[in-house]
Amino acid sequence: MIFKQQQALFSVAALTTLSLLPASALFAWDGIVEKQVFSMEDFTTQGGERIPELNVGWEAYGELNEARDNVILITHFFSGTSHAAGRYDPDGEPTGYWDAIIGPGKPLDTDEYYIIASDTLVNLNANDPNVTTTGPASTNPETGEPWGMDFPVVTIRDFVEVQHALLESQGIDSLHAVMGASMGALQAIEWASAYPDKVDRLIPVIGAGVADPWILSRLNRWAAPIRLDANWNEGDYYEGEPPIDGLKESLKLVTLDANHWQWANETFNRDWADESRDPAQDINARYAVEQTLDDIAAARAAASDANHFLYLVRANQAFMAGHGESLDAGLAAIDAPTLMLYSEDDLAFPPESVRRTADLLEEGGSDVTLETLEGNRGHLDGVVSIGQASETLREFLQ
Amino acid sequence: MIFKQQQALFSVAALTTLSLLPASALFAWDGIVEKQVFSMEDFTTQGGERIPELNVGWEAYGELNEARDNVILITHFFSGTSHAAGRYDPDGEPTGYWDAIIGPGKPLDTDEYYIIASDTLVNLNANDPNVTTTGPASTNPETGEPWGMDFPVVTIRDFVEVQHALLESQGIDSLHAVMGASMGALQAIEWASAYPDKVDRLIPVIGAGVADPWILSRLNRWAAPIRLDANWNEGDYYEGEPPIDGLKESLKLVTLDANHWQWANETFNRDWADESRDPAQDINARYAVEQTLDDIAAARAAASDANHFLYLVRANQAFMAGHGESLDAGLAAIDAPTLMLYSEDDLAFPPESVRRTADLLEEGGSDVTLETLEGNRGHLDGVVSIGQASETLREFLQ
Repeated sequence: MIFKQQQALFSVAALTTLSLLPASALFAWDGIVEKQVFSMEDFTTQGGERIPELNVGWEAYGELNEARDNVILITHFFSGTSHAAGRYDPDGEPTGYWDAIIGPGKPLDTDEYYIIASDTLVNLNANDPNVTTTGPASTNPETGEPWGMDFPVVTIRDFVEVQHALLESQGIDSLHAVMGASMGALQAIEWASAYPDKVDRLIPVIGAGVADPWILSRLNRWAAPIRLDANWNEGDYYEGEPPIDGLKESLKLVTLDANHWQWANETFNRDWADESRDPAQDINARYAVEQTLDDIAAARAAASDANHFLYLVRANQAFMAGHGESLDAGLAAIDAPTLMLYSEDDLAFPPESVRRTADLLEEGGSDVTLETLEGNRGHLDGVVSIGQASETLREFLQ
Repeated sequence: MIFKQQQALFSVAALTTLSLLPASALFAWDGIVEKQVFSMEDFTTQGGERIPELNVGWEAYGELNEARDNVILITHFFSGTSHAAGRYDPDGEPTGYWDAIIGPGKPLDTDEYYIIASDTLVNLNANDPNVTTTGPASTNPETGEPWGMDFPVVTIRDFVEVQHALLESQGIDSLHAVMGASMGALQAIEWASAYPDKVDRLIPVIGAGVADPWILSRLNRWAAPIRLDANWNEGDYYEGEPPIDGLKESLKLVTLDANHWQWANETFNRDWADESRDPAQDINARYAVEQTLDDIAAARAAASDANHFLYLVRANQAFMAGHGESLDAGLAAIDAPTLMLYSEDDLAFPPESVRRTADLLEEGGSDVTLETLEGNRGHLDGVVSIGQASETLREFLQ
């Protein structure tokens, strides 16, 4: 195993190399993204349940070459979407979560690669107009009603199968690389385990090979607030008031668990939310940090669906690479050289879990490079601080 | 600052010293505990609110000497009670949370010290027959109704003031030491800051000088499930069904946050709760670890009061040593030599926060010894692994 400590600055040599890359101005991606929809009929889940109609959104950056062998698949995190890079509004700023590394001349170079990403099944952001997904909030064509909790449980492997079908529909038979953060790392690992002949490079970011008991427990409490909200009504709320208060609290847990105390203590202070109401005098007053977290959660909740949240929790809980008898076998099935990016301060997928996955991958015969991401966000440094890994990514992809 | 790495074994020299201690068989505490009640009239909170009648339980181990100068006060953690040591049932086993260090010949030697502990105001375990406390579940004598959310906000300083009055009622004017874990550490620190002339030694365990934004946030989400439960009814549930589902989820957060992933992953596995119901097939099925956490929470909830939980959350949120303008000043007021025991794996009071408190105490002129506790529990090692610090405690108390 190669263990590389992240360098804060790139070397002069690396910058020189960059300037020597062939110019591809003719094909330079302009950063404008068009969301598209992939549809399937009669999808059967790994659990044997039938979804008669299935739609997921997808988007791509760069151009598919004639050999169709320049494809990088990006798989998204729990609260994410397929919007990894670019801008929907031609006049707007880029809004993708990995704009730092995806684009012309960037490590995931759109002049060289065809980079594609899709919304997962049961995507959290079911009410975001830029997201298309199928899940409990979708109409079951056989009943004409929303699925609610009758939607079948879907797993990370099901997410992979939908992506596989999407790629097949474009005549793509192999991946130059698959890369994802957090829940995206689980999908990337599952891709490499399920289709070892089709994955040339694997890049799990802030993720590991299994939902261990720690993660099972954390996900359990993420789900709890939704189930406590009387409006949840066993998932049957599409005709009435959605369980927005519970959903907000669930999303607040996601925000906090994905971050680190360094971030909290460097970003906030002990100010009161309302300077006329001292929390030490008024049991219903709040601190400013509480107000801010509530506001963030409310904004996220507006685009989210509570049942989708519960199904995502379960998909993550059910994850073990290969979905078979043992984690060892699931990881041993992987052949692809692997680059694992992670944070030593990750409180969601702790470093011990990442390193254990790396060990099992190596025991199974894969070459693994482990590299740390620095920052004050912990887990979230895998999203917001990914630019640090630019040179490593560039080299690994070549 | 002295930094001592915890030794796993005691030295032979230390054991020899122990055997040379004067025998005090005549006064040896037999381990039987009698819970008693201390009552006050017209207690005024730091916020200026009046509590016309106040009762808290207390218990003591060992005997008060004639000079009344052999007193060690033990202050309890969030979900704890005054039951730090001993057994209520003469025929039963000891059930105190710090039996490992309190007793005849132990570091907190009942042959030498008079060790006293009291239930705090708004104690969580309001429905435990061995606990006496005053809070929202108590009857307001002026209305004849439960206080509910009309109970005044109380702070860690108020807890200290009640303890101060309890000690005064026994003619005790100074403390050989004050020691507590987690919320108990906050009380101990506040004692030494509020009454520097009365505290000879300070022992904060797994705690720090302030509820920083990280802790404010964590406490916020502890409270959320109770407020989401429709039975909570703005705190007015004493005539109806209590918000037991919300309280259980709040207590589950306490259990998880007080522990560490090492504990979770070494204690549990990925078994299903019901071997006939696969969570990957049934959205309402659970993993065994989820079932276990629910069962632990249900047992704790039976003795707990939801409003008391909310008031404890606020007392902890409002904490800053000295409750004045600055943390620095609050800690600088402390004169007592200080022994801080903590875990490098503490996810509740992170090691950076503990070390910052130690730095400020030293800048303020106190002698500080920092010592780590090892284990797989993180924060909770301050309770369950305290025996490791036995020799350090014995020496510090002499």
